[in-house]
Amino acid sequence: MTDMTEIEMSAACYTPLTPLAFLARSAEVFADKDAIVYGERHLTYREMAAQATRVARALQASGVLPGDRVAYLLPNIPEMLVAHFAVPLAGAVLVAINTRLAPAEVLQICEHSGARMLVVDAGLHPMVAPIADGLTTVKEIVTVTDPAAGTVPNPDIGGPSYEELLARGSDEPLPWTVDDESATITINYTSGTTGQPKGVMYHHRGAYLNSLAEVIHSRHSAESRYLWTLPMFHCNGWCTTWALIAIGGTHVCLRAVDADRIWDLLDGAGVTHLNGAPTVLTLMANSTRAHPLDRELVITTAGAPPTPTIIKAMEGLGAKIIHVYGLTETYGPYTVCEWQPGWPGLDADDRSRMLARQGVGMVVTDGVRVVDPDMNDVPKDGATLGEVVMRGNNVMTGYFHDPDATEAAFRGGWFHSGDLGVWHPGGYIELRDRAKDIIVSGGENISTIEVEAAIASHPAVLEVAVVGVPDDRWGERPKAIVVLREGQHPTERDIIEHVHGRLARYKAPDHIRFAEGLPKTSTGKIKKFELREAEWQGRASRIQG
Amino acid sequence: MTDMTEIEMSAACYTPLTPLAFLARSAEVFADKDAIVYGERHLTYREMAAQATRVARALQASGVLPGDRVAYLLPNIPEMLVAHFAVPLAGAVLVAINTRLAPAEVLQICEHSGARMLVVDAGLHPMVAPIADGLTTVKEIVTVTDPAAGTVPNPDIGGPSYEELLARGSDEPLPWTVDDESATITINYTSGTTGQPKGVMYHHRGAYLNSLAEVIHSRHSAESRYLWTLPMFHCNGWCTTWALIAIGGTHVCLRAVDADRIWDLLDGAGVTHLNGAPTVLTLMANSTRAHPLDRELVITTAGAPPTPTIIKAMEGLGAKIIHVYGLTETYGPYTVCEWQPGWPGLDADDRSRMLARQGVGMVVTDGVRVVDPDMNDVPKDGATLGEVVMRGNNVMTGYFHDPDATEAAFRGGWFHSGDLGVWHPGGYIELRDRAKDIIVSGGENISTIEVEAAIASHPAVLEVAVVGVPDDRWGERPKAIVVLREGQHPTERDIIEHVHGRLARYKAPDHIRFAEGLPKTSTGKIKKFELREAEWQGRASRIQG
Repeated sequence: MTDMTEIEMSAACYTPLTPLAFLARSAEVFADKDAIVYGERHLTYREMAAQATRVARALQASGVLPGDRVAYLLPNIPEMLVAHFAVPLAGAVLVAINTRLAPAEVLQICEHSGARMLVVDAGLHPMVAPIADGLTTVKEIVTVTDPAAGTVPNPDIGGPSYEELLARGSDEPLPWTVDDESATITINYTSGTTGQPKGVMYHHRGAYLNSLAEVIHSRHSAESRYLWTLPMFHCNGWCTTWALIAIGGTHVCLRAVDADRIWDLLDGAGVTHLNGAPTVLTLMANSTRAHPLDRELVITTAGAPPTPTIIKAMEGLGAKIIHVYGLTETYGPYTVCEWQPGWPGLDADDRSRMLARQGVGMVVTDGVRVVDPDMNDVPKDGATLGEVVMRGNNVMTGYFHDPDATEAAFRGGWFHSGDLGVWHPGGYIELRDRAKDIIVSGGENISTIEVEAAIASHPAVLEVAVVGVPDDRWGERPKAIVVLREGQHPTERDIIEHVHGRLARYKAPDHIRFAEGLPKTSTGKIKKFELREAEWQGRASRIQG
Repeated sequence: MTDMTEIEMSAACYTPLTPLAFLARSAEVFADKDAIVYGERHLTYREMAAQATRVARALQASGVLPGDRVAYLLPNIPEMLVAHFAVPLAGAVLVAINTRLAPAEVLQICEHSGARMLVVDAGLHPMVAPIADGLTTVKEIVTVTDPAAGTVPNPDIGGPSYEELLARGSDEPLPWTVDDESATITINYTSGTTGQPKGVMYHHRGAYLNSLAEVIHSRHSAESRYLWTLPMFHCNGWCTTWALIAIGGTHVCLRAVDADRIWDLLDGAGVTHLNGAPTVLTLMANSTRAHPLDRELVITTAGAPPTPTIIKAMEGLGAKIIHVYGLTETYGPYTVCEWQPGWPGLDADDRSRMLARQGVGMVVTDGVRVVDPDMNDVPKDGATLGEVVMRGNNVMTGYFHDPDATEAAFRGGWFHSGDLGVWHPGGYIELRDRAKDIIVSGGENISTIEVEAAIASHPAVLEVAVVGVPDDRWGERPKAIVVLREGQHPTERDIIEHVHGRLARYKAPDHIRFAEGLPKTSTGKIKKFELREAEWQGRASRIQG
């Protein structure tokens, strides 16, 4: 349409999308409202924007240039939230590092990202002390001392305190804008179970759009009081770091996940929303403090399919469960299990089964597909297994400095999740397994998730993980590691019989191991690879046919 | 940052934004849910998408090429909603024409836009019959016959019926995507009071973002049942045509605004949301059918500042009022009067005063400014008058085929609204007057809105408009035209005294004219220019100093 040339896409009708705009707006509109609450500390929106400006100016004064990476190693404290605006405001790229990594991994990430500065919590100094001398690109280590934590900095870690950093800055405003919405805003390193971690790049456009989608799908409003049970280093807290600021809600910080503290805040801080893996929900539901809430609590959960059992338990406490699914490569959540009109009327079991699906692409996505190895759609029959693939504005730009891995991940023009699932009518996907967790037994695929759900429905079971173990006849067989509720003593046979009543016989585990607890990642996912390693020791291959 | 070159912004991580994606998604996720309800007619999302595809194919089969304009002259019926997706799906540009215009104006718009086809409701044939022979670019007139309206087509209007048009199409899918998000999706002609109408161009990106903002600020969810009291031809229904589809809500169509019919649907169709000018709210509140609702009804209102009186009346019925403001040039609403934490606790009068402000830029905007003639910000003191200006993704691309008007509107790089207002602390704007409606009396500006609000607070007053009338001593003086509630008989003096108790004495009108009703535009705005014309007859100039 040639008529469009009348006016070029000028600044007057085109502004690059960036989450920075969210804080600029809320700092004016909700100036005196709490943006962040953390124990006795309160930061209003005006104060948060002022601190972001000061940090940005301080980074610039410290030699951070546009496009430079700045690494942060902090728990869920206010300084970490501020960083999500301050670092991009300085034109730089935020690298929020997983606080549960080994020191060698922290080194690897700082080196790979070429981070120019590292901001670290005094309580996490033990992660940095062993590798401080090995950091070649980091010019300075800045230490944040959180009075609420009572931690003491390690004097061997040199560099300025956070207050000294701030003193280098100024209150001179910086523009809350970017020239190019496809510029990188953050790099998030995946906590891969083996090999070199990969740096997932997000652009400003994707972070902006995903934030709006979070607001819409998690039903946030300016009245939201969001509790930080999810680590902020995990996909930038599924973009909720930015989304809450967009809507003018209040962040309630939480340094460490602890059931008592969570219930303190649910009861005392007016919390309306939280995000977390199902293991966090299990922790909440099984606390002695658990009780029905006097208001709706929206819980957005992901990381593993929540079992019908935990969904039912949380609904019983007054929670509305929003089940989402995604990966670090998709800005966190990419799909949402949209509630259908008939679901509120279903009985709890049937509704739980529906809610355990990973769902459909969020409103800002290009949708999700389940494909066969030739990239053809599998039928939407709820049965045929395929790989989940995604694309569009909410898929990473690529892996930082890793063109080979990027190309492999995007083969066929779609991002390959590595997760296996089925496709239901209506486009709902349901994961059957992480690709590497599927059990192939006598040529039949067994979904460990399905077996786990069956075992978890036993009233004596608190938590369960199912892994494949080698079997000379069948190749692999499922084995369950089970944590029991206090005071419960079922036998191995009881549990297996319980499964027999629910699933095809070949899917039931042959053996149960009772354990005190399950190994978990920092984001609450069960470390199945560790459990699997223990079972496969002494064998060269992890696949047996 | 040179590292970004690793992967170009490929299709895998960049998808042009378009509202077409909303229907593609909802047609799958909410396939069997009602997208549109209109009396006995129900269209599910699957059916709506199928009809949009068929219309798009039919337009193409009729010779409509990418970028061609297709004009629609329909009331708020399902075919008008379908057009909002079908026309862009065909790659064309929708021109939704105001159904209250004179035939000559319809001709003017069809000719100026170069529309290739005109789709018209049989009930609106009288608007087209006199000008059918004058249409030079329109190749065919398609007639929609709405069984619910009982209208009979005029046989003199040639061309196919809507059904005949559909028969030309096919069900062959078209991609719900665009190559360029800055391409024009619609052109909306402003109902200027004088001179040539101007064609305001929207791009796909702006329509997409504004839709998400509508969802967020009007608090829509998949449970929304939205009643069409606002004309769809008005800024594409403030983008709600697209927004409701994005969220998977249900459109409740309404052919004509009628208090009884509105209350029928509020009571019987589960309506949760509606948009409308304050005059629509007045109509609702003063209906004999008015009664408190058993659920919250979100009313998003704009077009004129709602008076405290009407805000109080609607809140009394159970409505939550969201006050927004914008122009055709800003995709409809651009600002929203964000509720502040303290407002629910205010008494009704104080809250109403707050809610009468036009507010702050919506979350997807670049914010709003109030500027002096040199484009400097006026102080945020709630007192200094300036012009409201806007910019960014939700400001039109420009006026179609009118570079001079476009350049004038965008002088200084911001869109000039022509509206005068003050700026409050917190960035809230409050209109004092449309630029052309300001009364200058003895060198003092008098806001007609302020005077109207004072008069409207008199219990006997149903509606009021204030205009400037010539005065030999003061230049201009305010005069009020008042419609009284039934059975009420205050004197002119009573009303003026009432104002004296509320405003500076010079602002009170010297004369009141009691009238049976006020002339209104199709969107419910009071036609002040008509009232003013009547008062200034026989004078060459409309400004007197």
